[in-house]
Amino acid sequence: MAEPRTREQRREDTVRRLEHDVDAWVATADGGVPCLVPLSFHWDGAALYLSTLATNPTARNIAANGRIRLTLGETRDVVSIDGVASRVEPADAVKAAFAERTGFDPRTLANYPYFRVEPRVVQAWREVNEIAGRDLMRDGEWI
Amino acid sequence: MAEPRTREQRREDTVRRLEHDVDAWVATADGGVPCLVPLSFHWDGAALYLSTLATNPTARNIAANGRIRLTLGETRDVVSIDGVASRVEPADAVKAAFAERTGFDPRTLANYPYFRVEPRVVQAWREVNEIAGRDLMRDGEWI
Repeated sequence: MAEPRTREQRREDTVRRLEHDVDAWVATADGGVPCLVPLSFHWDGAALYLSTLATNPTARNIAANGRIRLTLGETRDVVSIDGVASRVEPADAVKAAFAERTGFDPRTLANYPYFRVEPRVVQAWREVNEIAGRDLMRDGEWI
Repeated sequence: MAEPRTREQRREDTVRRLEHDVDAWVATADGGVPCLVPLSFHWDGAALYLSTLATNPTARNIAANGRIRLTLGETRDVVSIDGVASRVEPADAVKAAFAERTGFDPRTLANYPYFRVEPRVVQAWREVNEIAGRDLMRDGEWI
C-alpha cells in the first residue's frame, strides 16, 4: 500500500480528473430508490455539466430534488463529489466544449437537456490508509 | 466500436464479474439524498454480500428501505444490478469465503454487519450499441 497522499497532491489529482476524465458514475434518488448510471461530463473550472434524456430517472430525480453524488476514477482511486444539480441552458461555448470533450453532442439530439452540478463536498481517497484526510472541499469551498 | 455481444455472452461476462471482481459501486438512498460508495463484495451464486460500518449511510439506508443499486466493471463495461438488501447473519462458510475473496474480514471488526443483496434486475452493456438487449434478469429471474 502506497504512502497516503498529501491534501495538495490529492487536490492536484482531483483537478486533473475533473479536467480530463470522460465519464463519471452518477447517483441520484427519488423516495428511497437509488439510481446509478455512468455519464460523460464536462468541467468548466467551477461546475460539472451532464446531459441525459429528459425522461430518464437521473433527469427526473434532478428535477425533483437536485441532490446528486458523482464519483470519478476507480473503486480504489476515488474522487467523490456531492453537489446540487439543476437543468440549465449553457452558453454556446460550453455546449461546444462539452461535445468536443465527451464525443457526445446533445445539440444534435432531441430531448437531451443539460444539467449543471455545483460541487459542495469533494473527497479523494485510494486505499484504507487514505480515508483520513480525504476532505478537499466543504460547503462549496476548497479547503 | 465492437459488435454488440449476444445475451449469452453478456450473461457469461456478468457471471464472471460476479464470481471474480473484488469491488462494486454501491448506491442507496434516504429520501432524495443519494449515497454512492465503493464496497468489496462476495457472490454465492444467488446473492451478493456486502459489509460496512453500521453507522455509515449505506447501512442506515439499507435498514430504512432495502433498495440498492450496484454496478460492476467500468463506465464503458457496465453490469448494473437492482436489488433488495437486508442485514443478515451469514453462515460461517460464507463469512470465511467473504474474507478470503475480498481481503477484508468483518469478523475481526466491531460493528461491521453483513448485508445480503438479492438481485431483481440485471443489465449489461458497454457502448451505446449495446443499450438494446442489455436486460439479463427481470423480477429476480435470468431471462
